[in-house]
Amino acid sequence: MKIYQKEIQLPEFKRGYHIITNILVEAVPELQTIAIGQFQAFIKHTSASLTINENADPTVREDFESHINKMIPENMPYYKHDYEGADDMPAHIKSSMLGCQVQIPITKGKLNLGTWQGIYLGEHRNYGGNRKIVITVFGAE
Amino acid sequence: MKIYQKEIQLPEFKRGYHIITNILVEAVPELQTIAIGQFQAFIKHTSASLTINENADPTVREDFESHINKMIPENMPYYKHDYEGADDMPAHIKSSMLGCQVQIPITKGKLNLGTWQGIYLGEHRNYGGNRKIVITVFGAE
Amino acid sequence: MKIYQKEIQLPEFKRGYHIITNILVEAVPELQTIAIGQFQAFIKHTSASLTINENADPTVREDFESHINKMIPENMPYYKHDYEGADDMPAHIKSSMLGCQVQIPITKGKLNLGTWQGIYLGEHRNYGGNRKIVITVFGAE
Repeated sequence: MKIYQKEIQLPEFKRGYHIITNILVEAVPELQTIAIGQFQAFIKHTSASLTINENADPTVREDFESHINKMIPENMPYYKHDYEGADDMPAHIKSSMLGCQVQIPITKGKLNLGTWQGIYLGEHRNYGGNRKIVITVFGAE
Repeated sequence: MKIYQKEIQLPEFKRGYHIITNILVEAVPELQTIAIGQFQAFIKHTSASLTINENADPTVREDFESHINKMIPENMPYYKHDYEGADDMPAHIKSSMLGCQVQIPITKGKLNLGTWQGIYLGEHRNYGGNRKIVITVFGAE
Repeated sequence: MKIYQKEIQLPEFKRGYHIITNILVEAVPELQTIAIGQFQAFIKHTSASLTINENADPTVREDFESHINKMIPENMPYYKHDYEGADDMPAHIKSSMLGCQVQIPITKGKLNLGTWQGIYLGEHRNYGGNRKIVITVFGAE
């Protein structure tokens, strides 16, 4: 078994959900040499997230933003951690609810995703900046 | 270290939460040869999920269905992605909240789960069909 | 590639969110020998969770407790699984929403976390007792 790792910095994305599958896959060409393995992307932030969801219809990503904002709203009266802005504490909770990593099987040199699956960046801050992601790929040739 | 992978298709399950630990374990007999390792099950769909929870009392699974339906309801006025039915958009959000994969330590040829832990399939569509799962097992003999 | 595994028992923590990064890292000194790899911590319980979040300001952890209690409250009229106490069924749902494991890249013998990331234990029971965690570490020297 072999293992490869790479750290990348994303372009800045606006608040919401964005498909970044191709950016991540293109960063590790070594995955094409792996017959059976796993691919992990890990985001090094606590106010953004990585998750897998529908890759075709942009309204799914808009509905994610609408409903998750309702589940985890800004300005709840009991929030104490508010000095970084109203979007900050909800961003932390969203990050843990959606998770900061995706772990995907590799089969014959490709991510073995379902037809409709893509990797979402959840950007939960209004101005999140350039997010850093560590990609680890391992398996057998 | 060795690695094995298998793709299976589940029987059709009705909407709700179902324990599928045995189906997954029986699909990869190679895991019995691994002394220390990891087991991953990855569901190739965006309207179903895999999670770990209580394996004994069926009312836990019923309460999951009741409360998660309340957290992530159908027919919210702001949903735009509605052409596949009222159960579709909530299914996508549930899938990302619960996750599409479980990653479990292997110890002495067995999943090293707690006494009360089992693997749940979350079927979030009314008629979800036969779900596909990729199982990857790796470790040292 | 090499793989190591260890099972530990945590001290008892009170209900809420607690940073346990150092406890977990110190349990597996072998991770210092891994140049590229992954670290997994898996909690063997269905009423506690492991997640990654902000490691500096304790009010983030207090806000987690406040808001997640609101998202997943006690005593909902439809809960059927109530014989272990009002805190039990919400604890199961929280465990699946936050997850029972964290999987973190290892780079040059250390967890490759972001500056502000730490590993949270989510203790969701009023009296959860001593929780068991399996740590698996693998990679290349």
